[in-house]
Amino acid sequence: MIHFDCDYMKGAMPEVMNKLVETNMLQTPGYGADRFTAEAEKAILDFCGITDGKVWLLEGGTQTNATVIDASLASYQGVVAAETAHINVHESGAIEASGHKVIVIPSKDGKIDAEILQNFLKSFYSDSTWPHMVPPGMVYISHPTELGTLYSLAELEGISKVCHDAGIALYMDGARLANALASEESDLGITDIARLCDVFYIGGTKCGALFGEAVVTAKPEMFPNFFTIIKRHGALLAKGRLLGVQFKTLFSDNLYLKGGRNALEKAFRLRDVMNRHGYRCFIDSPTNQQFFILPNEDIKKLSANVSFELWGPMLDSETPVRFVTDWGTTDEEIDILDQELDRLRE
Amino acid sequence: MIHFDCDYMKGAMPEVMNKLVETNMLQTPGYGADRFTAEAEKAILDFCGITDGKVWLLEGGTQTNATVIDASLASYQGVVAAETAHINVHESGAIEASGHKVIVIPSKDGKIDAEILQNFLKSFYSDSTWPHMVPPGMVYISHPTELGTLYSLAELEGISKVCHDAGIALYMDGARLANALASEESDLGITDIARLCDVFYIGGTKCGALFGEAVVTAKPEMFPNFFTIIKRHGALLAKGRLLGVQFKTLFSDNLYLKGGRNALEKAFRLRDVMNRHGYRCFIDSPTNQQFFILPNEDIKKLSANVSFELWGPMLDSETPVRFVTDWGTTDEEIDILDQELDRLRE
Amino acid sequence: MIHFDCDYMKGAMPEVMNKLVETNMLQTPGYGADRFTAEAEKAILDFCGITDGKVWLLEGGTQTNATVIDASLASYQGVVAAETAHINVHESGAIEASGHKVIVIPSKDGKIDAEILQNFLKSFYSDSTWPHMVPPGMVYISHPTELGTLYSLAELEGISKVCHDAGIALYMDGARLANALASEESDLGITDIARLCDVFYIGGTKCGALFGEAVVTAKPEMFPNFFTIIKRHGALLAKGRLLGVQFKTLFSDNLYLKGGRNALEKAFRLRDVMNRHGYRCFIDSPTNQQFFILPNEDIKKLSANVSFELWGPMLDSETPVRFVTDWGTTDEEIDILDQELDRLRE
Amino acid sequence: MIHFDCDYMKGAMPEVMNKLVETNMLQTPGYGADRFTAEAEKAILDFCGITDGKVWLLEGGTQTNATVIDASLASYQGVVAAETAHINVHESGAIEASGHKVIVIPSKDGKIDAEILQNFLKSFYSDSTWPHMVPPGMVYISHPTELGTLYSLAELEGISKVCHDAGIALYMDGARLANALASEESDLGITDIARLCDVFYIGGTKCGALFGEAVVTAKPEMFPNFFTIIKRHGALLAKGRLLGVQFKTLFSDNLYLKGGRNALEKAFRLRDVMNRHGYRCFIDSPTNQQFFILPNEDIKKLSANVSFELWGPMLDSETPVRFVTDWGTTDEEIDILDQELDRLRE
Repeated sequence: MIHFDCDYMKGAMPEVMNKLVETNMLQTPGYGADRFTAEAEKAILDFCGITDGKVWLLEGGTQTNATVIDASLASYQGVVAAETAHINVHESGAIEASGHKVIVIPSKDGKIDAEILQNFLKSFYSDSTWPHMVPPGMVYISHPTELGTLYSLAELEGISKVCHDAGIALYMDGARLANALASEESDLGITDIARLCDVFYIGGTKCGALFGEAVVTAKPEMFPNFFTIIKRHGALLAKGRLLGVQFKTLFSDNLYLKGGRNALEKAFRLRDVMNRHGYRCFIDSPTNQQFFILPNEDIKKLSANVSFELWGPMLDSETPVRFVTDWGTTDEEIDILDQELDRLRE
Repeated sequence: MIHFDCDYMKGAMPEVMNKLVETNMLQTPGYGADRFTAEAEKAILDFCGITDGKVWLLEGGTQTNATVIDASLASYQGVVAAETAHINVHESGAIEASGHKVIVIPSKDGKIDAEILQNFLKSFYSDSTWPHMVPPGMVYISHPTELGTLYSLAELEGISKVCHDAGIALYMDGARLANALASEESDLGITDIARLCDVFYIGGTKCGALFGEAVVTAKPEMFPNFFTIIKRHGALLAKGRLLGVQFKTLFSDNLYLKGGRNALEKAFRLRDVMNRHGYRCFIDSPTNQQFFILPNEDIKKLSANVSFELWGPMLDSETPVRFVTDWGTTDEEIDILDQELDRLRE
Repeated sequence: MIHFDCDYMKGAMPEVMNKLVETNMLQTPGYGADRFTAEAEKAILDFCGITDGKVWLLEGGTQTNATVIDASLASYQGVVAAETAHINVHESGAIEASGHKVIVIPSKDGKIDAEILQNFLKSFYSDSTWPHMVPPGMVYISHPTELGTLYSLAELEGISKVCHDAGIALYMDGARLANALASEESDLGITDIARLCDVFYIGGTKCGALFGEAVVTAKPEMFPNFFTIIKRHGALLAKGRLLGVQFKTLFSDNLYLKGGRNALEKAFRLRDVMNRHGYRCFIDSPTNQQFFILPNEDIKKLSANVSFELWGPMLDSETPVRFVTDWGTTDEEIDILDQELDRLRE
Repeated sequence: MIHFDCDYMKGAMPEVMNKLVETNMLQTPGYGADRFTAEAEKAILDFCGITDGKVWLLEGGTQTNATVIDASLASYQGVVAAETAHINVHESGAIEASGHKVIVIPSKDGKIDAEILQNFLKSFYSDSTWPHMVPPGMVYISHPTELGTLYSLAELEGISKVCHDAGIALYMDGARLANALASEESDLGITDIARLCDVFYIGGTKCGALFGEAVVTAKPEMFPNFFTIIKRHGALLAKGRLLGVQFKTLFSDNLYLKGGRNALEKAFRLRDVMNRHGYRCFIDSPTNQQFFILPNEDIKKLSANVSFELWGPMLDSETPVRFVTDWGTTDEEIDILDQELDRLRE
């Protein structure tokens, strides 16, 4: 059985695991007051080209989204997002749990568009009843999106300008950021992201860490008492140095990007293999999530030896599916998939 | 200047006001433990044909929706609604304030459809990732809807069946219920509503009271400690008898329905006048809210002597507007509107 | 039967009721955008000696506390209060419902002490683990307190200084403010309150209005989008002018203070009567709530013709009770109480 | 420098770490649907003597408390706790963040007493104003408590009976449970806990795991959709098997108890050493947290080579401090402390 279900099926990159073992019996202060966390913060800020910024290390993506968005919004404000946004679909209402509405605006392939956003804001405030509505206080985007797509530099500049002209914050969910940064198609670099977003997170869980996400901002003054907010959200790891050790390792020797590059390389081979076997793409994704439309019969047969995810409920005759690669995917695994697909035709 | 902006511009029906004056210096226990409240409850349950039910009197619509929905849902559940639902648009996030997502499903003219609802539920639970999503615990409908439209008996039976087959509650926002019950077009009576919905409210504020909404249920066992929940929502009136006196009066001598009948009669005359002057309806509404599309120039001119509401932001050349009648609208007011429209053409 | 249970057993002062009747059929814009509300705001700001302030009119006390405190605090902050504070005891958790902890510090007779507050704050921030705790963002006091006691000018100056030195807001719950302002013992005037508190409310419900509380601040910049916050809390009255009419009337012809003066005068007569009959005070209260300790047997007998409240659960042999007077209490009622007490001894 | 600050300064027990390394490159389904998690659940239920129970693995203590308590309470209910309870002091308001009040009742040495609890409940419901208050829905205890103390079997039976007679749930925070179970003084075993509490958690973070807490219940029907609630609280680990691997290891070969025994053995040696040097205990603790009162001067000197925690803010001349041992504390560390204390007297 080979697995392409998702990018959180293995543990951590061996280099990360080794460092955890190596430091295991050290005694350090709790809650991120250790030197590894300080070193990780410095490495990440350097990577992002931020001089006076701040990094906080949290445990998982939903938790990070809920904590950052809650910290950024006034009680009565909402967060603007695409309909497909993770916060709108797959976080069991963690944003609403803190009292905030997810305000959905039209999107395409998981991406928000600057012009549509601007029109929404204009329309919102030109409706005289807006004080009875939920005012937007932040825009949430993901990069790569939940559909594997990427923002270009121009697109992010556009969104950032609309947000800042309107006085609302821009937040990027980078759960799979390694895959965006490793993309040769993308002209959007980490320093652009650090400059254009008010806050974003660099995903660890899906990009080589055991677990962990690094929240980064070049505007720490926007986040007073963020430590307390993390604690209140149940998101403060007692042994914070576990996150410090991991992120310090990921941001040494270019390890984070290496992981992303492997995921992309294998994703593109996988796509070629699938296309060659006649399966068309459901979405045109330049990253490590690849979506195809498969006849239900093929889904059933292939599932005997290959695991992957249905993308939504099973439809009548054919259904979209998702294959995901990661830092550890091997050529052998793609070869086996190829052979399994050959066998399907026998 | 004549006013058709909304149905909460005047005070209360004179009969209601008289009773408040008459009882003003009486001393009664607070928080609804008075005899007027008990009499109002009895009158309302009789009106609804409910034997072992319960009525709670609250102050306003948003408050009532927030309180009832919060009382009905488990912490992690959401409430299904049309995109145009008051709870989704015009309550400043009062539902999310209690931690609950408003789950929007496709709707038409403000109405939810049983089949679409059933498909949504089927699709939701056949998606294997649903435990990461917000499970629906209640369906919210308004009758009349925010667009003035009405459910038929068959439609409500359909929705009720889908809800109860799925084990979720059905709630009707009756802010303007008098106008639905007074409609001769409608085959949906109050006893049907009381039988098909788990809980609903009979609107007072827009239907003859100074303020107040009566929450009604034939299943009081679904709402343990509702008094405490009302208090927690800041929705408990100290002098609860003010609500008791009003609702007792509204449900004596058929007053509630009389108010609705006047509103409808005047609304239909108003629609005729508008149509006769060449303004087409934006929505086909059988109740006291009438929607038309007006050239922006006419909007501007007419506004000098007649007040009404833009329905959304002002558009480029013509814009939807809303005219509203109520229990106190007079034929003279419609006549004046007619004359003003004549003058517009001069 | 005569009633001293509480100060919300009657309707409104006749002058207030008359104005509501007089204006009943006028049509005005909703949600406080009417001229009566504007006039009430002006009258109240004048009364408070505030030049550039803001007044918002809400419906009830718990609602007002929840709305103001939620608007004032960051999501993770708490509000400091006495153990006996209404927000800590009798609001069904309305403060926690918005996510905020009520932080109890030692108090005496319902009052917070500046020095104890200062020591609490000092101790809090000198505990190195404070970022794991709930930081105070506001101090809540009531005046008169829940036990009928009053702050002196010096006491309020002390508390205000501690708050502002620490950068936290000071809020006064004035549910019964008329009784404080009417007190000849008190050296704390409304202009002092307006200067020393960041925000406070002038109670209407218990001081002559049908219902309603006026939130007042001389620092409106502290409360951006407060209208939306009111709506979100379900605290926005559709026919806002009902509140405007009432408060405009209460703050014309000194009516508000006249009501307070009557309540105090009758409270002191009542206290004399009770003392003369041998019942000692449970708390020494200079306002309209008077507390006595009564043998349980006397409670039972007296209750046949006089209603009043047990102050807490019934104890073994004697139990504290509360008698309350208001703007409408008459000398005849005190006389009857006197006679009933005489009869008790027969 | 030697460290006695707390029991979360090191990583995991070597056996746990080895298993994480060994399983690192395996691919398993996410979110706890893996075989290690299933095996851990079985091992834990066996350990607890539960037949038809359920175990959920979460990441940290505050998160676990917030999730379990939120899942157990109706929206308007509160949780009863000692003043010193972790949820009341050191969780940054995580309980209130879900809308629930922490209801403090008198306690001694961190422990709740059955009789005091019963009196509180009796007094609460005999106060006629209780529907305006926050009704208790759960009792929270910690074992060992935050002060290192332990409940006896008789004490827990008493509390459990009071809770269940009153229809409210009993929850035990077992962040340091290994230290309680390893105590020879204690007559309260894990099967008693499983029988007397409705839900409890077995702490991993402070007892040998890298991180993780195991929520256990013999009454899974009390927790419908708990998976979704975990997700909503941001408490669902993507690579859930990391928790499964750890807990499976901890509950093999008696490892969990071995860790507790080492912690206790070293704690008692430490206490002897401290007492021998003339420092009296601040609290009489039978577990791995030991509290002493030290002159401020000694605190300062000793801190040069030994780290430990101040217990609250620094007082005038002497201050309570806390020393903590764990599964990994060695005799050499105690010896060094002894020598350092000798040197203090030189």
